Formats: sequence, C-alpha cells, structure tokens
Amino acid sequence: MLNDKKNQEWIERRKTNKRLQNPDFLVEKLRAGDVFALSKAITLVESQRVEDRKVANQLIDKCIPFSGKSKRIGISGVPGVGKSTFIESLGKLLHLQGNKIAVLSIDPSSSVSKGSILGDKTRMEELSISENVFIRPSPSNLHLGGVANSTKESMILCEAAGFDTIFIETVGVGQSEISVCSMVDMFILLLLPGAGDELQGIKRGVMELADLLVITKSDGQQLEKALEAKTIHEKASHYFCPKENNWVTKVLLYSVFNQDSCKSILENINGFFEFMDQTNWIEKNRKSQSIEWMKDTFQKLVELKIANLNQKKWLEMEQLIRENKISPFSAAELLMNTYFKSTENEGDTI
Amino acid sequence: MLNDKKNQEWIERRKTNKRLQNPDFLVEKLRAGDVFALSKAITLVESQRVEDRKVANQLIDKCIPFSGKSKRIGISGVPGVGKSTFIESLGKLLHLQGNKIAVLSIDPSSSVSKGSILGDKTRMEELSISENVFIRPSPSNLHLGGVANSTKESMILCEAAGFDTIFIETVGVGQSEISVCSMVDMFILLLLPGAGDELQGIKRGVMELADLLVITKSDGQQLEKALEAKTIHEKASHYFCPKENNWVTKVLLYSVFNQDSCKSILENINGFFEFMDQTNWIEKNRKSQSIEWMKDTFQKLVELKIANLNQKKWLEMEQLIRENKISPFSAAELLMNTYFKSTENEGDTI
Repeated sequence: MLNDKKNQEWIERRKTNKRLQNPDFLVEKLRAGDVFALSKAITLVESQRVEDRKVANQLIDKCIPFSGKSKRIGISGVPGVGKSTFIESLGKLLHLQGNKIAVLSIDPSSSVSKGSILGDKTRMEELSISENVFIRPSPSNLHLGGVANSTKESMILCEAAGFDTIFIETVGVGQSEISVCSMVDMFILLLLPGAGDELQGIKRGVMELADLLVITKSDGQQLEKALEAKTIHEKASHYFCPKENNWVTKVLLYSVFNQDSCKSILENINGFFEFMDQTNWIEKNRKSQSIEWMKDTFQKLVELKIANLNQKKWLEMEQLIRENKISPFSAAELLMNTYFKSTENEGDTI
Repeated sequence: MLNDKKNQEWIERRKTNKRLQNPDFLVEKLRAGDVFALSKAITLVESQRVEDRKVANQLIDKCIPFSGKSKRIGISGVPGVGKSTFIESLGKLLHLQGNKIAVLSIDPSSSVSKGSILGDKTRMEELSISENVFIRPSPSNLHLGGVANSTKESMILCEAAGFDTIFIETVGVGQSEISVCSMVDMFILLLLPGAGDELQGIKRGVMELADLLVITKSDGQQLEKALEAKTIHEKASHYFCPKENNWVTKVLLYSVFNQDSCKSILENINGFFEFMDQTNWIEKNRKSQSIEWMKDTFQKLVELKIANLNQKKWLEMEQLIRENKISPFSAAELLMNTYFKSTENEGDTI
C-alpha cells in the first residue's frame, strides 16, 4: 500500500515536472503565484542548453506583459558590509506591510565567493520561511554573461508571479554595480563606517550611481565614525553630477539594533518611488534599459557564437597564416564572410 | 614652355598616382625601396573606405612573403621620458652601421596627444633626412581598432620595402604597451630617474613585459637618482615572472650626452636578438602573434559590422520592446538569426 502511494506520488510529480516544461502551463502556474513553478522557471532561464533557451525565450515573452509592476531595487556593498542583514530587516518590514518580496543575487565573481552567497541564503533564514518571500542565489555560472541575463529574466518571472518588491543583491566589485544599475529602478549602496576609508575603497563613479548611501553598523562604538562618514558623504554628494532622474543622493545611517533606522530607510525608498511616479521616470528608464538589454544580449550572443564557431575554417586560416600564404587581416575578413550574412544598407566604411 | 612642362609633370604624377592604386605595381615599387610608394601604401592601409580595404588586403597578402625579415622593437614610456631622443640616437647609430630604419607610432590616445606625435616627427628631424630612415606618425584615427591594425600592416609594408629595423613607438598608457608587445619581438620600456616614483606610475605588469628597462636622462644632477633607480629596478626584476622567451630583463642607463650609453643599449639589443636566434623564439612568437592578429581583427570586424548593421531590423525590435510585445532576449536572438549564417558543427550550448 505504502509503495503504491509512493509510486502514485512519483508519477504525479513526474507528470507535473513534464508539464512544467510547457511554457503555457508554467506561465499559468506562475501567475497563480506558485513558488515551485517559479523556481522551475528560473532554473530554465539559467540553463545554457539550446533547447532550454528556446523554451525560456517563449516563457519570458509570455511573462513580459505581466512584468514591470514591481519596485526593482539594487543593493550593493563590499563583502562584510552587511547586505543580507540589511535586506532581511527591510524585507521583514515590507513583509509585515503585506508585500511580496523576492531577493535575487547577481555575483560576477561567484566562483570565488560562492560560499558567501550560500551564506546569505542561510543568514536570511528568518525572512525566507514565508511564502511571500522568494530568495534565490545566483548560480555559480561563469558562462559569458549568462548570470547577468538570467538575473534580468528571473526578475521578469518574479514579477509575473506577483512579487512587488525585488531586491537585486550584488557584491561590490566595481563592474557589478554598473551591471546591477542597468536593471533596477533604485540603487542603494551600503558603506562601512570609518570615514575616509570608503572614499578610497569604492570608486566615486559608483558612489554617484547610488540613490541612497547607507552607512551600516551605525551603533555602539561605531556610531561616532558612522556620523562622521555621513557628514563626509553628504558633503561629497554635493559634487556629484546631477542624476538623470533628478533625485539627489541621500545618506542614511543603519543599524540592525535600531528599528527606526530601518523604518527611515523604507520611508526614503517610498519617497524615491513617489517622486519618480510624478515624473514618470521609471517607465521611461525601463524602456531604455530593455533596449540596452537587447543590445547587451546581442553582443553576448555574438561573442558566444564566435567562441563556438565551426573550428574547421579557423584552423584552415591559421595554417595559411603559419605558411605565410595569407595575412592575418585577410584571413579575418574571409572568416567574416563565412559566418555573417551580407546585409544591405551598410555604410561606405567598414 | 614652362606651363607645358608643368602640365607634363602633373600628368606624369597623376599617372603614377593612378598606377599606385594597383597593388601589383605598388608591391613592385615597394620592393625597390621606393619611399613614396611606401607612404602611399601606408595611407591605403590606414583608409577606412571599403574599396581601399579590399586593395589594402590584396597588397598586404602580396607583401607577406617578403615580410618578417626585420627586428621589430617596441618602445614605450610616459610622455616626457624622452622616447624620440632615444630613438633618434639609437637610429643614428644604426644608420651609421648601414641599417634601414623605420619608426612607426601607435597611440591609442592620439586625439589627445596629437601635438606630441607631430612634435616627435619634428624632433627626429636629424634622423629623418636620410633616405634609409622612414618616420611615420600614426593617424589621429579613433575608428575602432583601426590604428592598431594599420600599424601592424604598416610594419609589414616597411619590411617588404627592405627596412631591417622597425621601431614601434607608443605613449605609455597601460593598454598601449600590451598592444605594442603583441606586434614586436623586443619591448623596451623607458623610465624616468627618480627611484620609487616610477614603481607607482607604471604598472608592474607592464614592467614585466619589458626585455629592457632603460632609465633616461641619466646625467648631471639626475645621475645619482638614475643609479638608485637602476638598483631598485634590478632588484625588482628578480621577482618578475620568468618570460616565455627565457630572457632576463636588463636595466640600463641612458643619456643623450653619453654616446657610450647608447652603444651599450645597442649591444644589448643585438645580444637579445642573438639569444633569440639560438632558440628560434622569434619565429615561433611571430606565428602566434599573427594568429592573435587574425582573432583580434575578426573581433574588431564583428564589432564594426554590428555598429554598422542595417538599422531597420534593430528599430523594429526596439519598437516591439517598447510595446512590451517581445522580451529583449528574444529580440536579440532574432537579430542574431538575421545577421549570422547558421553554421554546422556548433556545440550543444549557446
């Protein structure tokens, strides 16, 4: 009897699994807020297999009309600044207010800091037990740009599944902040107290990207340093280039032991989105982000295509070069003609 | 009568000019060491026009069999280190020994330091009056990678024209040294005296690329500083990664007022090439450089192709994205299929 039941369960699960390969069924499940389907869908968009990519693209296309209704918030900072603590307290507050929160990690250096991401997932345990909270660490996937795109796609999937606040978390390594800014509405940069230090550690360009600078661990013996850092950053922010969204960067203090600091940050986040609503900036910004995503994806696909090109022609050319029978420059042009379709309306210059 | 003669001259010149568009004629002239033809040929390879590129490729292919017989020497250093003075004294010495010397400049930041390159040309006046010396500043051409490739091509043209020593001069800006290393046999880095300073100013990675570190302006009051710098760099060079060519980086002093310092540098250059002859390294290195050139050129051509693609399809996709009708990722894949020929034998992953 027990075996029969197990068997039945197994058959059911297999059936569901199979049906979850169907983009229409997946979208239906997603729209109903099914977190298991969401996980499945994200695994699908993270896949590098050609057949999976085809289904993934169909899926994303179907989700696009239901996407875009969330607040997209990027959070960055050096390792140890307290990103997961920060997200957890903010998340709990939002959760209490009835929000559905998704936390996605993007980490270009994930092969190195794999442990820290897994750590994050464990550390946000208190937050992650709710059904209305979805936490997904990024895969330790070094495939060219794969991670970045799958994060954008995951965001769209989360939105289709009804999540209204999405945190994109990234370890600050210079490039990743810029990458995360290209996919969110608001960018929060966490800084350690210890005035002066961080001015050196984090590039000014990255500072200028931030809509909110948050000095973490602003408590106990660190409080004085944090206040000092606040003053310095506030002064520095006066010299920032004015942002396209006309928002003036704010500097706030945060401590996990001070619930008010968390509330104040949430108020500022809400203030940001209210301000942006008035100018319709988010809508405009997302359109141009999407177009940038297309360009980036195209660029990456081209790079991947080149990396995986039919090697025969390449080796042929290399041999001709070795024999001094062709110049490397002609060889490159011959390769171009092999792989590229000729297109009309091109310019007069190459 | 005078007018007739002038007219005749003009007709002759026009005829020659027209014939110089013919790659076979150009190669013939080049092989005979005609400097005017060489200038013409370089102008051709520097051109970005599609029709010129076609002729240029034919020309280079025809020159390839006659190329590769020179010593290719890269010289780099920060502005003011004395590159042109150094090249001029080295060049005069080589010239006296019966060598044919070409000096080509590669400067990725040429739009900024245009003046300095023109300056170089003027400053090397003493050297440039001889028929056996060819000096060519790089064009202030910011076209994607155009400069770098045309420098490689110019080098091949100079070799076909019988120049046996080619100096590729570049202003040190980090990237350019790496770029110049990919096209020469030997790399000389010039450093200012003032020990310690330059250890900061120039990245260690660039130092390690150098086969010869030359401390310039080692005279008068600077001599002591120069000697100090020599000691420091010699010590530092012990910690360099061993080079592929098994050569141990040497540190030498140079002063324009000390002819012996110049002779010593030339001896070291000759020593380098003798050592490399024994291991056949130059031959091997050039083959792999050529293959890298092909890859780089291909990459650049792809980038240019993308930049100049038929815009209609792009705009169509952008519109669909704006209307939320397609995801940016699907749009990118559709664009790929528009421009790329499908190739067999591709991997299972995209």
